[in-house]
Amino acid sequence: MIDNPFYSHEFHGDYELIDIGRLDLEEGGSIPDCHLAVATFGELNAAKDNAILVTTWYSGTHQIFRDAYIGVDHALDPAKYFIVCVNQIGNGLSTSPHNADGPSADIAMSKFPNVRIGDDVVAQERLLREHFGIDKLALVVGGSMGAQQTYEWAVRFPDKVLRAAPIAGTAKNTPHDYLVAEILNEAIRSDPGWSNGEYKSHTDVVAGLTRHARIWAVMGFSTEFWKQEKWRALDFDSKETFQSEFLEPYFTAMDPNDLLCMAWKWQRGDVARNTNGDLRAALGRITAKMFVMPISEDMVFPVRDCIAEQEMVPGSELRMIDEIMGHLGLFAITPTFMPQIDRHLGELLATEV
Amino acid sequence: MIDNPFYSHEFHGDYELIDIGRLDLEEGGSIPDCHLAVATFGELNAAKDNAILVTTWYSGTHQIFRDAYIGVDHALDPAKYFIVCVNQIGNGLSTSPHNADGPSADIAMSKFPNVRIGDDVVAQERLLREHFGIDKLALVVGGSMGAQQTYEWAVRFPDKVLRAAPIAGTAKNTPHDYLVAEILNEAIRSDPGWSNGEYKSHTDVVAGLTRHARIWAVMGFSTEFWKQEKWRALDFDSKETFQSEFLEPYFTAMDPNDLLCMAWKWQRGDVARNTNGDLRAALGRITAKMFVMPISEDMVFPVRDCIAEQEMVPGSELRMIDEIMGHLGLFAITPTFMPQIDRHLGELLATEV
Repeated sequence: MIDNPFYSHEFHGDYELIDIGRLDLEEGGSIPDCHLAVATFGELNAAKDNAILVTTWYSGTHQIFRDAYIGVDHALDPAKYFIVCVNQIGNGLSTSPHNADGPSADIAMSKFPNVRIGDDVVAQERLLREHFGIDKLALVVGGSMGAQQTYEWAVRFPDKVLRAAPIAGTAKNTPHDYLVAEILNEAIRSDPGWSNGEYKSHTDVVAGLTRHARIWAVMGFSTEFWKQEKWRALDFDSKETFQSEFLEPYFTAMDPNDLLCMAWKWQRGDVARNTNGDLRAALGRITAKMFVMPISEDMVFPVRDCIAEQEMVPGSELRMIDEIMGHLGLFAITPTFMPQIDRHLGELLATEV
Repeated sequence: MIDNPFYSHEFHGDYELIDIGRLDLEEGGSIPDCHLAVATFGELNAAKDNAILVTTWYSGTHQIFRDAYIGVDHALDPAKYFIVCVNQIGNGLSTSPHNADGPSADIAMSKFPNVRIGDDVVAQERLLREHFGIDKLALVVGGSMGAQQTYEWAVRFPDKVLRAAPIAGTAKNTPHDYLVAEILNEAIRSDPGWSNGEYKSHTDVVAGLTRHARIWAVMGFSTEFWKQEKWRALDFDSKETFQSEFLEPYFTAMDPNDLLCMAWKWQRGDVARNTNGDLRAALGRITAKMFVMPISEDMVFPVRDCIAEQEMVPGSELRMIDEIMGHLGLFAITPTFMPQIDRHLGELLATEV
């Protein structure tokens, strides 16, 4: 158990740590007492048919959804819906390498087992059913790795997902995206301070985490974001300060092993694992009404890859998000981003299914 | 002086090391005895009007041009033209950090001064004039950093350049491209074996050079190259072996400081330095007939950036190269690449100017 102030209620506000018990993993091994960090918004109605599941991305937590995506002025409206935001395993709030303790102390740090997107979805389904008594979801929505979980939900539990909105992510990770995650991983692992995952503090790995942040500078935005100096609109006076005062503090606050745990999952996201490798068959299982929502300038999950999958999902619609920030447009910093998300999610939620 | 077998006649065949004397540099300092490694093909005619200058890219040498671009079956035909391929300063064959010796011994390794694209072009102009008596070039052509040199020639010496073909490169480097080069640099510099540029052998930096190669795997090709497993056509049986047996040996054979020297130049290529920062004015100076030749799937010098500049070059034409390999399509490995290059260069050379 490593003390890291980033993963605290002080930084992350209210959330509940819910013990879902032992979670056996696809790759073998298990998490003896899997805790999911859950933030909820709104009330579950008597019919239990107003539940929305929000999934999290690499490096992300429920915080960004609470602060930017969820509210009475958004499609994800807690006055109408019971919104359950579940932090993914390994994200530092739910059971993760850096915080595994108690019965899970034996899998802390470098001993943490490999977790798959499917494990998260199984854990979330158990949580919703056993803890909240939720059997059907009005919507599953998430961005990036959250989109991977969204697809996995729609394929694995078609009867439970009425609507689904994968934003800026794919159902089957591409080889290029695998390589992107790999250079992020190598930036961390190549830091001697990482010590094969047995560092004493995340600050021992600050050099690797900083290089990792700089790779995000290259892949996370768009070429036009940099060319048009869009960071000026975010109140930075140079591309260097945008990196040193925004991107680098963002990532260097995090736990290296937690990032590596999430990246391993991200690299291997693939709904076709449910259908012996047949992606078309997997996507053909989806009965949810799905809006596939790529980001126009995304270099991590390019539009082209998202469209190729959308075309295999019965009855789905392509809803492009125009966003010069590229993949990290997901941070919902630009004023034109959330209105697009809200419009599409609002339409999706209004669709009878 | 570091012994590195890659930079030898055994690997690079015939080339001449030509001493052009002291080269004063834009950034201050100088190279006391600048040697340019030059490979020529064909004969200069009596009118001295059949000379073509070929410039080199980051990590590249004259070798790739000799082996793939130049020949009687190519537009760059040594039966018609006198083709002068000049290795850029810092590329390991011309004066470079790892080979600076004799009068230049004081600027070896970490003491090597910063060199700009403009310095290369000034050196090349001196070489052509003093050594070969060439005053006008029928064509200047190069890819990537070679395109940067091509643009610099056309802007700096408009009277000397009749035709110009920048392939897969820009006249002014973009901020995003700067960041790409920076993560490549950091991969090298973060290797403890680099020792602030004072390593004893390039093999001390093999870990950094390997990470550097893996970043090229992400940026150097296209997402579709990986998705469609185009490396199969190059006789590799997995994306891992394509990296470990092709990309990694390619880059780990090279000298780290030489790569850093070239990257510094690459990051700062900007013809607007000739016109007080006014890019339009700089490109407006060009009188050469210019074909701007971006590669369709290029992530390092994206088509969009190339087109924006082409539109500012009077009388220029956009000639897109369709190539799924992306930027490293420049290696001319795929069978459809050279026919496109030859067609466009052939047309350009046939254009009366």
